[in-house]
Amino acid sequence: MPALVRDSSPAPSDSSGSPGSKIRLIDHVRPERAPGEARVRLRLAGVCSTDLELAKGYMDYDGVLGHEFVGEVEEATDPAWVGERVVGGINCACQSCSFCSREQPNHCERRTVLGILGRHGTFQDSFLLPERNLVRVPAHVPDEHAVFAEPLAAACRILEQVDLSAWDRVAVLGDGKLGLLCTMVLAEVIHSVTLFGRHPGRVKLPISVEERPAPPPEFDPSARFDVVVDATGSSEGLATAMRLTRPSGRLVLKTTCAGNSTVALAPIVIDELTVIGSRCGPLETAMSKLGEGRLPLHEMIDSRVSLEEADAALRRAAEPGVLKVLIEGASG
Amino acid sequence: MPALVRDSSPAPSDSSGSPGSKIRLIDHVRPERAPGEARVRLRLAGVCSTDLELAKGYMDYDGVLGHEFVGEVEEATDPAWVGERVVGGINCACQSCSFCSREQPNHCERRTVLGILGRHGTFQDSFLLPERNLVRVPAHVPDEHAVFAEPLAAACRILEQVDLSAWDRVAVLGDGKLGLLCTMVLAEVIHSVTLFGRHPGRVKLPISVEERPAPPPEFDPSARFDVVVDATGSSEGLATAMRLTRPSGRLVLKTTCAGNSTVALAPIVIDELTVIGSRCGPLETAMSKLGEGRLPLHEMIDSRVSLEEADAALRRAAEPGVLKVLIEGASG
Repeated sequence: MPALVRDSSPAPSDSSGSPGSKIRLIDHVRPERAPGEARVRLRLAGVCSTDLELAKGYMDYDGVLGHEFVGEVEEATDPAWVGERVVGGINCACQSCSFCSREQPNHCERRTVLGILGRHGTFQDSFLLPERNLVRVPAHVPDEHAVFAEPLAAACRILEQVDLSAWDRVAVLGDGKLGLLCTMVLAEVIHSVTLFGRHPGRVKLPISVEERPAPPPEFDPSARFDVVVDATGSSEGLATAMRLTRPSGRLVLKTTCAGNSTVALAPIVIDELTVIGSRCGPLETAMSKLGEGRLPLHEMIDSRVSLEEADAALRRAAEPGVLKVLIEGASG
Repeated sequence: MPALVRDSSPAPSDSSGSPGSKIRLIDHVRPERAPGEARVRLRLAGVCSTDLELAKGYMDYDGVLGHEFVGEVEEATDPAWVGERVVGGINCACQSCSFCSREQPNHCERRTVLGILGRHGTFQDSFLLPERNLVRVPAHVPDEHAVFAEPLAAACRILEQVDLSAWDRVAVLGDGKLGLLCTMVLAEVIHSVTLFGRHPGRVKLPISVEERPAPPPEFDPSARFDVVVDATGSSEGLATAMRLTRPSGRLVLKTTCAGNSTVALAPIVIDELTVIGSRCGPLETAMSKLGEGRLPLHEMIDSRVSLEEADAALRRAAEPGVLKVLIEGASG
């Protein structure tokens, strides 16, 4: 079975910059399992925009790509895990640094991150994760929902970081995969969420969500929001979000993008904005939401592709307006 | 008596860009006093870096410059104010917009700001402020200390916004006027404050302050701080502060600068930093600190210049390494 990696070799004949030109299938990678690690056989993996950024060279990662998955444990130190259907936290912590001892393993100084930093990812037949990172998938949650656990947890992270009240005026910028998940999670606790995006109506969202096109350059200051979540994945996201956030409001940066952004920082000071960086979230909370079965996740699936065609999956995921592309493992 | 304004006329023969070339003395401006306003006769004004930015064109302000002052009330609607020695809050609020009704007058949508936005400032013989903005100066606080009330209040604002514990590792970036005041205020509540700047030793700071030169481009990640205050007034301040802030740490943007900054935003997300914009602060708290008389403010005074030479005061304040330049009113 193949594994999908970034192609870091120079390709002067192809300067398109599309992720498709920067990935290649190799024979699968099978590292030694360390004590306390589980070998997980892939059932279903999801393509995330971060995978596309990594394929373009973000973070100089050159291992097997992929960090969203549902799989089945085929080997583990604790035999109770073997045969279990699982999802998993992507940050693999050292358990001894100052962040680990402060119960912030996601910020471990020596962490590896599945498919992102120093640890081969999920776009292959099987991969390794510490057993403590695993979360069991209840039998009634289908693979097609469980595979959303990791990005859904990232959306739930907002609720851990930002103290929200039900009547806060909340906006999400960007109706891509993560923007939609953030909107769904926020709509469960906020009376009215505004989603700014280019593709209104492609997913049936709760009635409390108002979908609007991308905000105009001159946004009415009196219509600004208490909380704005930037999920655009764009270097202009912060600047746009700042225009939409009221004085002393909060602005959550949810998506990373490679490279630099050019922004006027004075409004952050003048309007005393709080900008909150937000990354990985609580997988158990996400799994609990998936268990409730209320989120319209099936509408977010664009297509399913076999592992042998994982390169096609990334090319498809990079097309404008495409939502979640899933990659099927042999046991999926 | 003269008043100091920005010179907004084109000056093709002088492209030095120094604030000295962008200011001029005009005959004084004496607007009508509205009900509830006090006319304050200048005793002493302070030159702030924001004045230098305004002189260069920041915010397109073209009134009389200056917002730091101690003065004496010469006319007021409430006769109890007349003759009082006062300092004053610079944000003049409408008292009816949504921010005013939420007790956030500093963010009033229709505010004028003394010497910054729609209201002539303190670099002239007398100026107007709403009586509700005034704070009396106790008799034992000399003018040379009282004139620091406004920037000291801005430093105190950090304590209102950021929940600090005494053992937090705190750094201040920039040992200019505001950076020094922030350091003094933080040193009263934090066991150890590190001040990064170009001029170590020019003001005798509390023993709990460690002064260090500007941080190197490669800062040891394990030495990063829990809280970093950017008081550099530089467009590179945020990027430098980000390198110095530990994951899930807090970063206070204290100084504004005109124009754009170019920064990589991904670390804000990956390290889940919180960036807090911080502007004006509680004048009563600042006056209370001034009343205690413990801050080495006299060491921060570079020079005193009469109002007739206010243009020279701004030129002096723009020289590298110069601390507070004071402008003396006729009644000072």
